[in-house]
Amino acid sequence: MGGNEKNGNKSYWIGVDIGGTKIQATLFGDSFKPLLSERKKTKGQEGKEEGMKRLSEVISIVMKNISQDKVKGIGVGCAGPLNLEDGSIIEAPNLGWKNVPVKKFLEKEFKVQVEISNDVDAGTYGEYKCGSAKKARSVLGIFPGTGIGGGFVYEGKLIRGKNSSCMEIGHLCVMPSGPICGCGQKGCLEAVASRLAIASNIAAAAYRGEAPSILEEAGTDLKKIRSKVIARSIERGEKTVEEIVRRAAAFIGKAAGIAVNLLAPEIILLGGGMISAMPGIFLEEVKSSAEKTVMRSFRDTFKVVTAKLGDDATALGAAAWAKEVIEGKEK
Amino acid sequence: MGGNEKNGNKSYWIGVDIGGTKIQATLFGDSFKPLLSERKKTKGQEGKEEGMKRLSEVISIVMKNISQDKVKGIGVGCAGPLNLEDGSIIEAPNLGWKNVPVKKFLEKEFKVQVEISNDVDAGTYGEYKCGSAKKARSVLGIFPGTGIGGGFVYEGKLIRGKNSSCMEIGHLCVMPSGPICGCGQKGCLEAVASRLAIASNIAAAAYRGEAPSILEEAGTDLKKIRSKVIARSIERGEKTVEEIVRRAAAFIGKAAGIAVNLLAPEIILLGGGMISAMPGIFLEEVKSSAEKTVMRSFRDTFKVVTAKLGDDATALGAAAWAKEVIEGKEK
Repeated sequence: MGGNEKNGNKSYWIGVDIGGTKIQATLFGDSFKPLLSERKKTKGQEGKEEGMKRLSEVISIVMKNISQDKVKGIGVGCAGPLNLEDGSIIEAPNLGWKNVPVKKFLEKEFKVQVEISNDVDAGTYGEYKCGSAKKARSVLGIFPGTGIGGGFVYEGKLIRGKNSSCMEIGHLCVMPSGPICGCGQKGCLEAVASRLAIASNIAAAAYRGEAPSILEEAGTDLKKIRSKVIARSIERGEKTVEEIVRRAAAFIGKAAGIAVNLLAPEIILLGGGMISAMPGIFLEEVKSSAEKTVMRSFRDTFKVVTAKLGDDATALGAAAWAKEVIEGKEK
Repeated sequence: MGGNEKNGNKSYWIGVDIGGTKIQATLFGDSFKPLLSERKKTKGQEGKEEGMKRLSEVISIVMKNISQDKVKGIGVGCAGPLNLEDGSIIEAPNLGWKNVPVKKFLEKEFKVQVEISNDVDAGTYGEYKCGSAKKARSVLGIFPGTGIGGGFVYEGKLIRGKNSSCMEIGHLCVMPSGPICGCGQKGCLEAVASRLAIASNIAAAAYRGEAPSILEEAGTDLKKIRSKVIARSIERGEKTVEEIVRRAAAFIGKAAGIAVNLLAPEIILLGGGMISAMPGIFLEEVKSSAEKTVMRSFRDTFKVVTAKLGDDATALGAAAWAKEVIEGKEK
């Protein structure tokens, strides 16, 4: 460990993950082995200027033993909506920031090319580069969290819109006339299968007395019904909770199946905290429900896997994608 | 016109379109200008051996003035399911053929590399290369016919499965609990908006006396209610018929909008006989319905256009894609 130049790397890449709770910067060598990481709390509520300061600090720390000209690029992963063309955050609802010119700021600060990516795109790309979907021909990433994000890597490239990320699988309709979604439509996958949707169903079950361990650990507060609390309740045999999670996972499988009919991915990659807390249930339900949804000719053509890079996936993917874009452009 | 070598082309490509009614071969020069075309009736019912013979004949005719070593490849477009890996037709329901090793047969016959493509993939790629979607960053092709096929070109590449085409937009569910589709599901786009679905609604309207010109021209036989018959009925002011077509077109727009949320295409390309018979209605309804379906951030980010290469799109696209694959592999 340690980012000094004795590693013999000819070039370095820095990946940054701007999340709701922490900002993490990681230094990578040529083959994207993480060499040094640094994190700080995001503290979004203190405003974007403070945020940019912290961002700049974590990057400086991981760069400190490297001569600046060996750092070939910085990739930043962040929840959107983003403007990929000018590299700015249009709005980061989980941080309360608007119009943050991340690329411009960091390029001025560090004199190196910066590329920003949607966090789920970056996570999917990271798992494609070094994780559970390594070298797959095509990967559909699905990351259920507060919302549900998607990413698609095809023959080594992230599929994106002109200025924006796409693959909004969280807004596929899976339950017509279902609950209202944050986007304004009804029955979006996100509205029935995100951690938030699951937690709200579990809170009601707890209130009804069907999930004593939830009631004990978290009460009926959605904020406190975190993935690990849910997983523990299921381990203790609380059937209603398990049923709620399985049902949500089956909807994720349905959405995945719809996407298979369009994109025929080799791998469906599930990632995020809820998946790592309950991998078995999600793998089982997503696979079974996706197989039921796909057309006959796509049956048994894809694998469902869980992410394995954990917290590093976004930083790694953002850095690796920055390399792809920067070196691609130089060609 | 005429495929002799005086054109100064250094290399030639041949594109073939195997359709339900005709087999067409076209010779293309370097920039995919069609130089010479030949077609024969497919006569699928006479069997696959007869079909292969006719296929070989049309290709021989367009090659006759070219030295064989200048023909760099043959691309064949055909309705599927296809096995793209070994280049065979698994089943061509509109021809009654099964297990036809097209690539193997033609490579033996003509001693040149052969690539086969799904016909809609080829049509979309053709329009991307030389037609209405020329040089677009990303194109979603939708071709409503007896069924509804889709194709997606992203940064110059057709998105495909490992061995098969994908982008089965005809099997997106747009009307839960809707009519049963040939694929076994309910409410697929194809079951509510293909020419067949439209014709069956129009036949019922004709039977009820709401479409006298349809009754006069075609009776209530779905086979005879062709696109041009429908278009003439609308021109004569038969409102029920227009309503049926508009409603179907709006469903195509809905499916297109769902795909936009996933893929953010720059262009939605509408092609096929029904579109060329009634371009105005389809452009209007698809655009308006897609804009209503997409998430706010994708509004006004895409154009809806109609194909312009007509009957040549599939042959051109199949040839151009063969070039892409063959030259890509040689790299």
